Amino acid sequence: MEDRVEISLLMDLYGPLLTEKQYRIMELYYNEDLSLAEIAELNNTSRQAIHDLIKRCYKQFLSYEEKLSLLKKSFEQEKTINNLLKEFEEKYSITKEDYNRYKNILEEL
Amino acid sequence: MEDRVEISLLMDLYGPLLTEKQYRIMELYYNEDLSLAEIAELNNTSRQAIHDLIKRCYKQFLSYEEKLSLLKKSFEQEKTINNLLKEFEEKYSITKEDYNRYKNILEEL
Repeated sequence: MEDRVEISLLMDLYGPLLTEKQYRIMELYYNEDLSLAEIAELNNTSRQAIHDLIKRCYKQFLSYEEKLSLLKKSFEQEKTINNLLKEFEEKYSITKEDYNRYKNILEEL
Repeated sequence: MEDRVEISLLMDLYGPLLTEKQYRIMELYYNEDLSLAEIAELNNTSRQAIHDLIKRCYKQFLSYEEKLSLLKKSFEQEKTINNLLKEFEEKYSITKEDYNRYKNILEEL
């Protein structure tokens, strides 16, 4: 299926908008790496039903991303922060310790 | 109805998740300050129907905010940025010009 890293990032951003059941199944598949057959067994349903649910959730994520662009913004944010820190470091010769502390603070924004 | 400033902020964050019609009506009511009666007339519908739609959209915003906390995070982000800039300024005596530039960059994150 689609790129697991991308979906994992989309899960972090939009996962809370899924139903509890959808979220649990996406977690099992993308973060805990269970197979469709294993998840189907756990949920007393068919492999096909799980496959369809995962596909539907993924499409929902893409639709949210198309509207809110939270993933795109987070990539841009990362780049901006790195540029800013680089400039700050060169221009004001900040300590390595502060550099790392600022980096942590900014990356948590 | 509810606090207009809060709803205006929620519109910026979650407005793209509304349908086009819902978005347009919320815009007219909260950002262009038309009355329910005026919006009803524009849409060939009743004042009550517009009232219900606005109430439903507002509840949807609250539900999104409960799940994603984008507004809460943006307030926290603002506070963190201000603290960071204050520290930059005091510790590394950055120029007023850089202070303002960094502030602009960080506030756009």
